[in-house]
Amino acid sequence: MSAPASVGRVETRTARLFTRDAPLVLESGARLGPVDVAYETYGELDADRGNAVFICHALTGDAHAAGFHDEASRPGWWDNLIGPGKPVDTSRLYVVCANLLGGCRGTTGPSSTDPATGEAYGLRFPLFTVGDLVQVHRALLRHLGVERLLAAVGGSLGGMQVLQWALDHPDEIDAAVVVCATARLSPQNIAFSAVAREAIMRDPEFRGGDYLAAGVRPDRGLAVARMMAHITYLSEEGMRSRFGRRIQDAETPRFGFDVDFQVESYLQHQGESFLRRFDANSYLYLTRVMDYFDPFADPAALAAKLDAVRTNFLVISFDTDWRFDTSHSRDIVRMLAAHRTPVSFREISSPHGHDSFLLVIPEYHDTVRAFMDRVYRAREATT
Amino acid sequence: MSAPASVGRVETRTARLFTRDAPLVLESGARLGPVDVAYETYGELDADRGNAVFICHALTGDAHAAGFHDEASRPGWWDNLIGPGKPVDTSRLYVVCANLLGGCRGTTGPSSTDPATGEAYGLRFPLFTVGDLVQVHRALLRHLGVERLLAAVGGSLGGMQVLQWALDHPDEIDAAVVVCATARLSPQNIAFSAVAREAIMRDPEFRGGDYLAAGVRPDRGLAVARMMAHITYLSEEGMRSRFGRRIQDAETPRFGFDVDFQVESYLQHQGESFLRRFDANSYLYLTRVMDYFDPFADPAALAAKLDAVRTNFLVISFDTDWRFDTSHSRDIVRMLAAHRTPVSFREISSPHGHDSFLLVIPEYHDTVRAFMDRVYRAREATT
Repeated sequence: MSAPASVGRVETRTARLFTRDAPLVLESGARLGPVDVAYETYGELDADRGNAVFICHALTGDAHAAGFHDEASRPGWWDNLIGPGKPVDTSRLYVVCANLLGGCRGTTGPSSTDPATGEAYGLRFPLFTVGDLVQVHRALLRHLGVERLLAAVGGSLGGMQVLQWALDHPDEIDAAVVVCATARLSPQNIAFSAVAREAIMRDPEFRGGDYLAAGVRPDRGLAVARMMAHITYLSEEGMRSRFGRRIQDAETPRFGFDVDFQVESYLQHQGESFLRRFDANSYLYLTRVMDYFDPFADPAALAAKLDAVRTNFLVISFDTDWRFDTSHSRDIVRMLAAHRTPVSFREISSPHGHDSFLLVIPEYHDTVRAFMDRVYRAREATT
Repeated sequence: MSAPASVGRVETRTARLFTRDAPLVLESGARLGPVDVAYETYGELDADRGNAVFICHALTGDAHAAGFHDEASRPGWWDNLIGPGKPVDTSRLYVVCANLLGGCRGTTGPSSTDPATGEAYGLRFPLFTVGDLVQVHRALLRHLGVERLLAAVGGSLGGMQVLQWALDHPDEIDAAVVVCATARLSPQNIAFSAVAREAIMRDPEFRGGDYLAAGVRPDRGLAVARMMAHITYLSEEGMRSRFGRRIQDAETPRFGFDVDFQVESYLQHQGESFLRRFDANSYLYLTRVMDYFDPFADPAALAAKLDAVRTNFLVISFDTDWRFDTSHSRDIVRMLAAHRTPVSFREISSPHGHDSFLLVIPEYHDTVRAFMDRVYRAREATT
């Protein structure tokens, strides 16, 4: 069944981790229940439960990180990194990936039914933090019988979760891989997310977030938000080599307002295909949680936290990433190193911008592989 | 009446340059008439008509480049550059600025009435080129009794018009100032404009471009388009120093989807105030004319043109401009220099990104002033 170097056929399972009577208590104090979490696992948990790796997904990811659901489907979004013999090697690691709280791919989020009303939460869903995302991941691990992690791995918003996790629970993660992430969005980063949210919330079919009850969807706004965000995921250089100024399906321009340049056709496709798999309210919540993320904001509180961190970090950036450019990663590295947290840093050359973390870039995969090998061998040496 | 170093009180006049019987013939072959052009002039035309300077405006500019309409109003958009004793010195120059064809500030555009239908043109307005914009400018100059220009000056889309003008009419302009312009949009440039147009055209009140007849306006889409474009006019660095991560009107975040960060408040204001002065269809036409602009596309045709150019160029870029970064200006300079067209190039350091061309940046204004002085003195020497 399974293709070579694939974890093969997998399925997404769901666990009810919190109930109405035993709710999730968010950092804000809000209580949320029930909370169901969609997750997948790859590989086998060792008898000593010491080989677990958690994969934290980015803004629009889901629990399906590796393998395939059926023969016709596309593999998981990080299938090139996770599998037997791959950098995150499932022949010896037990890998867990879960859809984020607030998401729309099986985990409770604003499109879930609020038991108090019988309707979708919409904007009545409580605002949450990256720390809350981590709490839900930890509850899932307890459900799976895992107490600590050999490693946590994530890119972009995924890397932000890994960083927060290591800060909040310094003894729980041996090693952390933080790829093209940030400890603090810049005003330009916030600006792009703010305009994406405006596109959604100004769509007349947004209906104050209650579009599901009305049987409509703010598809126009969500597609525009995705198209704009997608520009920030690619590099100028990558767009030049991929599209140039080539015309779509023609030799000469048509001169009009329909799609004419290939880059327009590509963005249209990105916008439209996104509608099939994503919920507008989830987009609002998961971008807003990033805006407010600022774990290094309070130096005094941070110092105590960082001094306790025992996690071994690998921080990776890509030279053409302008969504979270290398200076974001350097800020993380500088702060960790200042508190003697072990940290390796690599800026990888890639023409593909922020999206590089999802692609096979040999230097990147080799770096993750070598780091994960060291982590695994260090664990073997101590057990 | 006039403030120091201001051209003082001015008014926008309108000239009918083409009629239904004597229409403007566009490069596409389409015919358009009547064509009215809104324009302003500053300073006096010399007896020998040799001191005329044309100001070409950018995407969202208008004819009101300098002075003020009444005491309560804001000065013209380039008032810091144009006036007595300013870099474009109206004490000795005759300066003309006109709203672009396809615009919405007095010149015929898609919101004008189509005499064939009695309704606004909407998307029935013909698509035009930068060369067509130049044709209309030239018709205005003939109307004013001006046959040739001492200089043409423009930033961004304005600079693109100046470049096209010098290429198409090599004997007509003594000197050209081309600021933060481009000879060819990159795919990323096109992508941002394409998504802005999507935001407008997907607004349900766009009505296929016939919103005026329906008594509505695609304000939601136009505001989103403007907000997104505005991000590309500022630099990351400029946003950091201006807004940082500061919260609007509060000490601590409110945690929600309303405006919270100052940068969000700023963009909202930019989006909303734009609605008062701009038409959505004009935004479509004037961004699309930029996408298709590519005067260097045909090297053989270009060589003949460039060899004939007698214009003396000053090309200026700004180091933090990422809308049209310095490489765009360098491409123009390289092409001109390869054909022995006299060209000076300066990259100016400024934290303000693309918007720098509208601001008082001493090195920038000094450079324009010195160039314009040389141009004026060279003219004196030959007359």
